[in-house]
Amino acid sequence: MSANDSLHVAVVGNGVIGMTTAFRLAHAGHRVTLQAPSAATGPSWVAGGMFGAYTEAWPGEEPMLHLGAESLRRWLPLLEDLEGVPAQQSGILTGRGTVLAGVDAADAADVESIVATTEEHYPGVLRRVTRRELRALEPSLAPVLRGAVVCDDEWSVDNRQLLSKLGAACRELGVDRVLGSVTDVDELREGVGADVVVVAAGAGSAELIDVPVREVKGEVLRLRRRGSSESRPERTIRARVHGRPCYLVPRSWGLAVGATEYEHGHDLEATAGGTRTLLDDAAMVFPGIDDYAFAEVSAGLRPYSPDNVPLIGEVRPGVVAACGHGRNGILLAAVTADAVRGIVEGEPLPEVASADPNRFRS
Amino acid sequence: MSANDSLHVAVVGNGVIGMTTAFRLAHAGHRVTLQAPSAATGPSWVAGGMFGAYTEAWPGEEPMLHLGAESLRRWLPLLEDLEGVPAQQSGILTGRGTVLAGVDAADAADVESIVATTEEHYPGVLRRVTRRELRALEPSLAPVLRGAVVCDDEWSVDNRQLLSKLGAACRELGVDRVLGSVTDVDELREGVGADVVVVAAGAGSAELIDVPVREVKGEVLRLRRRGSSESRPERTIRARVHGRPCYLVPRSWGLAVGATEYEHGHDLEATAGGTRTLLDDAAMVFPGIDDYAFAEVSAGLRPYSPDNVPLIGEVRPGVVAACGHGRNGILLAAVTADAVRGIVEGEPLPEVASADPNRFRS
Repeated sequence: MSANDSLHVAVVGNGVIGMTTAFRLAHAGHRVTLQAPSAATGPSWVAGGMFGAYTEAWPGEEPMLHLGAESLRRWLPLLEDLEGVPAQQSGILTGRGTVLAGVDAADAADVESIVATTEEHYPGVLRRVTRRELRALEPSLAPVLRGAVVCDDEWSVDNRQLLSKLGAACRELGVDRVLGSVTDVDELREGVGADVVVVAAGAGSAELIDVPVREVKGEVLRLRRRGSSESRPERTIRARVHGRPCYLVPRSWGLAVGATEYEHGHDLEATAGGTRTLLDDAAMVFPGIDDYAFAEVSAGLRPYSPDNVPLIGEVRPGVVAACGHGRNGILLAAVTADAVRGIVEGEPLPEVASADPNRFRS
Repeated sequence: MSANDSLHVAVVGNGVIGMTTAFRLAHAGHRVTLQAPSAATGPSWVAGGMFGAYTEAWPGEEPMLHLGAESLRRWLPLLEDLEGVPAQQSGILTGRGTVLAGVDAADAADVESIVATTEEHYPGVLRRVTRRELRALEPSLAPVLRGAVVCDDEWSVDNRQLLSKLGAACRELGVDRVLGSVTDVDELREGVGADVVVVAAGAGSAELIDVPVREVKGEVLRLRRRGSSESRPERTIRARVHGRPCYLVPRSWGLAVGATEYEHGHDLEATAGGTRTLLDDAAMVFPGIDDYAFAEVSAGLRPYSPDNVPLIGEVRPGVVAACGHGRNGILLAAVTADAVRGIVEGEPLPEVASADPNRFRS
C-alpha cells in the first residue's frame, strides 16, 4: 500500500469510528464501501459526547492519556475538513472547557490523582480553581463541589449531529453504503472487491477478527431545558459523586448526563436504577436540573479491550482493526481515522503504537 | 327525560369519564355521539389505574370516600357488561388488594388518619398487619415500611386496556365518534341534534360550561419487569414516603409508579425532578425495582375542583357536567356513568348528591 494510490477500502461499522474512518479515507481520495446495519443506535449514538482527553487521565493509563491528547489535537482540523468552516462554527461543538470536581473527600482524592497524572505529562493544561472562582465561572453548580480544576482545552460535542454530518459528508464523497451485517471479513473483501477491510464494529469486532473486545453497558440521559429552567453550566462538568462518575455535557437544547457502567453482557435496556442514580448524582452537582424535561434515557454497549486501550492496526494483511475504544470512541475517532489512513497508505502513525491489536496474542 | 325513551346524547371528552359514560348510555339503548380530540393522551391515559376507594380516605373528605366506595361497587358489573365475562377474567383488572404503609413516623400517622376515617364508615374493610405478616404477603417490600394495613376489596386496573376496550365496545354499540374539539356546547347540541350534552372534558370543561376545574400536573412512570428482575408486589402498594404519596400499581408487564403533584398550570412535560422523586421513593418501598426497565415517564393534568369532589349533574337544562374528578377519574367513572344515565333518564342517583355541580355558584 502506498500514499499515492487510490485504494478501495471496506469499512465495517457505522459508529463514530467507522464513520470518521470512512470520511477520512474518502476525503483523502480512496474509494470506500461502508457496511453496517441500517441505523446507528449503538454507543456512539447514546454517548454523552466529550472531547475530554486530560480530565480522564488515570495513573497507569498513560497510553490512553496520550492517545486522547493526540486525537483532541486532530479533531479540530478534521471538523474543518468535514464542515468547510472553522471548527468553532461547526455546530457540532457545543461547549468549550471542562470542570472536574468531587463531592466527598475520596472523590476529591480521585480528582487529585487525575490532576497529578495529567500535570506530569501535560503541565499547565489543568488549573485549580477556588470555590469562589468556580462560583464565578459556573454559578449554577452546587456549593458541595470540592477540589475543582478547570481545563480550557477540551470540548463537548453533539454526537448525534456529528454522526449525521459524517453520514452526509460520506454520501457527498461517494462512499458506497451497504446495509446488513457482516459475518466473514474475507467474504466481504471478495464480495465488494476491496483492497483492505477495516473492522470498526465495536464489540461485534470480537467475532469477526478474534480480538478481545467485550461489551460494557452504560446509560445516558438527555434532559431538555424548559422556559422556566435555570441555565445549564457552560462547560462540561465531570464530577465524582461518592465514587461514581457523573458528567453533564452541554447541548444546544440542554444536557446529556452520563454514565453508568455495568458488566452485564449484551443488555440494551435502560433500567430504573441506572436512571435513578444518574438523576440523583446530577441533581447533587447541578440542582437546577430537576426542572429540566426528561427527554430520554438510553443504554449503549461500550466496546472495551482488556487494558482499556483500543485496538488499531493490521491483524493480518489487508485486515485492519479499529475497535475496543471503550468509553472514549468519540474522542479517539480522529486519531483512529488518521491512523487507519496511515496504515492503508503505508505510513503508520507512531502515535498509536500502544494500540497494537496484536498485543494480546500469545 | 324518561326511562323508556331512547335519547340522543352528545358526550364531550374521550377520557375515562367520557368513554365510560358513552358506553353506559349506548349499552342502555341511547344514541350517543362522542366528540373528542383524536387520541386519548390525557390523565386517563397517564394514570396509575387504581380502584382504590378506601385507602384514599382522608378526614374531611368523606364525600369522596362514599363516592369511591359506591363507584367501586358499580365497577365489577360494568366490567361484565363491557367484556361479557366475569370481571376477574376481563384482563383489565391486574391485581386485587392494596397495602397501605408509611416510612417515617409522620407517614405512619398519616396512614392512621386514613384508617380511622375508613373504619368509621366502612368498618372491617381495612386490616392491620404486622411486619411479619406483611413480609409473608409481599416478600419483595422493604422492611422499612411501618404501620401497614391491607384492603382486600380494592383492585388495580390497566387503564390503557380499559380505555381501549371502552373504545372498542363503543364502536360495536354504534357510538358515533366525531374528531375535533368543541368550543360551544349549544352549537354542538344543535349541530348533531342531541337531546342532552354531557361535558366530560376534564379541565377543558371549565371554559365550556363555566365550572371551577383547574389542572394539577402529575407524573407517572412505567417500569417493565426484566427476566433478571425480582417479582413485583402482587397488590397495589400505596406508601407515604416522607410525606409524599408513592404508589406501585401492578401490570401484567411490571409496574406503574405514581404520582407527583404540582400546581403548575398547563404543563405536560415530565421533568427530571419528578422522575427522580418517583424512582427514589419507589426504590425505598420496593428495592427490586432498580433492575426494572425504564419504559416511560409521562405527565397528565388532573382536573381538580375546589373541594376535590367532582361535578356531576345538570348545570342547565340539557347540559350535564361530568368533570373535576381530580386524581380519581378511573375509580369514579363507574358511578359517574351511572349517574349521568340516571339524569338522562330522569332518575338521578341520590348517591352523587355531594357532586352537585352548582354548589360553587353564589
